[in-house]
Amino acid sequence: MTIPLSYAEIESAAKVLEGVAHHTPILSSRLINKLVGAKVFFKCENFQKVGAFKFRGGFHAVSKLSDEQAQKGVCTHSSGNHAQAIALAAQTRGIPAYIVMPNNAPKVKRQAVLDYDAQVIDCEPTLIAREHSAQKVIQETGAHFIHPYNDRDVIAGQGTAARELILELGQREIELDAIIAPIGGGGLMSGTALSTSALSPNTLIWGAEPQGADDAYRSFKAGKLILQEQPNTICDGLLTSLGSLTWPIIQAHLEQIITVTDQEVLEALKLIMSRLKIIVEPSCATPLAALLKQGLPKNIKNIGVILSGGNVDLERLALLCSNNQ
Amino acid sequence: MTIPLSYAEIESAAKVLEGVAHHTPILSSRLINKLVGAKVFFKCENFQKVGAFKFRGGFHAVSKLSDEQAQKGVCTHSSGNHAQAIALAAQTRGIPAYIVMPNNAPKVKRQAVLDYDAQVIDCEPTLIAREHSAQKVIQETGAHFIHPYNDRDVIAGQGTAARELILELGQREIELDAIIAPIGGGGLMSGTALSTSALSPNTLIWGAEPQGADDAYRSFKAGKLILQEQPNTICDGLLTSLGSLTWPIIQAHLEQIITVTDQEVLEALKLIMSRLKIIVEPSCATPLAALLKQGLPKNIKNIGVILSGGNVDLERLALLCSNNQ
Repeated sequence: MTIPLSYAEIESAAKVLEGVAHHTPILSSRLINKLVGAKVFFKCENFQKVGAFKFRGGFHAVSKLSDEQAQKGVCTHSSGNHAQAIALAAQTRGIPAYIVMPNNAPKVKRQAVLDYDAQVIDCEPTLIAREHSAQKVIQETGAHFIHPYNDRDVIAGQGTAARELILELGQREIELDAIIAPIGGGGLMSGTALSTSALSPNTLIWGAEPQGADDAYRSFKAGKLILQEQPNTICDGLLTSLGSLTWPIIQAHLEQIITVTDQEVLEALKLIMSRLKIIVEPSCATPLAALLKQGLPKNIKNIGVILSGGNVDLERLALLCSNNQ
Repeated sequence: MTIPLSYAEIESAAKVLEGVAHHTPILSSRLINKLVGAKVFFKCENFQKVGAFKFRGGFHAVSKLSDEQAQKGVCTHSSGNHAQAIALAAQTRGIPAYIVMPNNAPKVKRQAVLDYDAQVIDCEPTLIAREHSAQKVIQETGAHFIHPYNDRDVIAGQGTAARELILELGQREIELDAIIAPIGGGGLMSGTALSTSALSPNTLIWGAEPQGADDAYRSFKAGKLILQEQPNTICDGLLTSLGSLTWPIIQAHLEQIITVTDQEVLEALKLIMSRLKIIVEPSCATPLAALLKQGLPKNIKNIGVILSGGNVDLERLALLCSNNQ
């Protein structure tokens, strides 16, 4: 029987990441507060190492390998940010990294992995092709596989972002009435849920998903894990299905999951860029889109939002922000 | 005879701005350091109130008015950021603001001024038209005119950005070998020069200008003030000529002025956005473009860069970052 993930593992991950991961800033905008009808505190993981929260989980997971395991290297399949995280963590530890990547991954993410001295193995953009290619690499090299989200060390690492947000706001005597994160495979969401329920038990925990990849929403409604087939959304970081580890945590802790259209994501994305003056990935804008869509109960005064990452081809961002959209 | 501006005025402005202006963050990028060949510390005034350093000078100047002067309101002409600064400062003090604006000013800047309850007076996009319209407003209302840069209280306010940068790096035991800022009318540059020469006398002081508005470069070479005629550059914040107050400070303190093409600015702009994950105006990228263009002497290890602001129409940014450029 597997022992359920506990907040103690997040505490332990936080110790590993101290002085290694950036303590990312919290930004706010008066106009966004006005539009949402509450104070919104954005935890800016786009400023994290490798440009996304994924560094937290990836570094933590690599750090937990024994020297014997580590020497054969690490392997993963990822559409981008997790790949960079594993590549940088492996480079830091001085071990090989084998990254299986769909051949349609954004250029900027692919190049960044190469810059961290990792070996990139191309595959077709399907889950089956990814898993098959990764398995082949592992058989050939003996590398240790680190799953992008369905891994307890990865989840524990991701939970440190919400932990930092809650603790820093606590020092400013601000208690969150709600916290919201985007849901892809559920690593960030489940880590966020564990930190929040432990540190701030009165805070409501919400998830945000694009309608074109709403497996978590449908799972939540049905009370059982439903996998995502043929996702279709501009949120390229949120295409994957929940996993066997992330789903039970999400089911146990979330109050609601809000789904939004790509158009709503785009409006929120423009608002974040023009008002917070930061570059974020489309996936990042899903929680703000959800807050703008949903009428908030009056007792919700302070909301935490995890901004997941900022790795996006500028040409793609330009296309998204052009008048035609 | 006018008393020359001294660092004491910047100290005094810093006191006025304490708890009012944001203490903006300093960002860095390993890749940019590698490309420049030195550690580059970006002082991010795009996160300043109204999205630009101009808030510092504008608020300081408005704060210095007597109650009698203030009650009739303030007036200025500006292509954008100074306008917002004056509008917000006036709104904060509860006095009227009359903003003369060229009819080709970016939409986002115009709207922001209106959001701060200021009255916008449109004019043709020439210096003569601006000054004429402002004069008319002043005659009608008795409002106090606050020049965008040729005003000692404005210059003193702008100097607080470099002051903060130098003091914060000092706490981290980092001494700047050089500091660089963009030059438009010279308010930011002259304030930066005064703070730097007072607080860090060994630091070289550099300016950066687009070739299409290189009046400071030409003035510096000629040893006399030359005005800018028909500027032509994507750096819409750097179109104006130096003033009678800013020019002597620039002449006295700068070691060099580096000019760059719009294409070089664009490359630097993309680098800032993709690596620092922040939104900046094209004008902002001029100093980094200059550092990338110029070979640096070997003894230059730490460089401070003032990133001036982040107010740019996303559609325009999209156009600049599209593949066609």
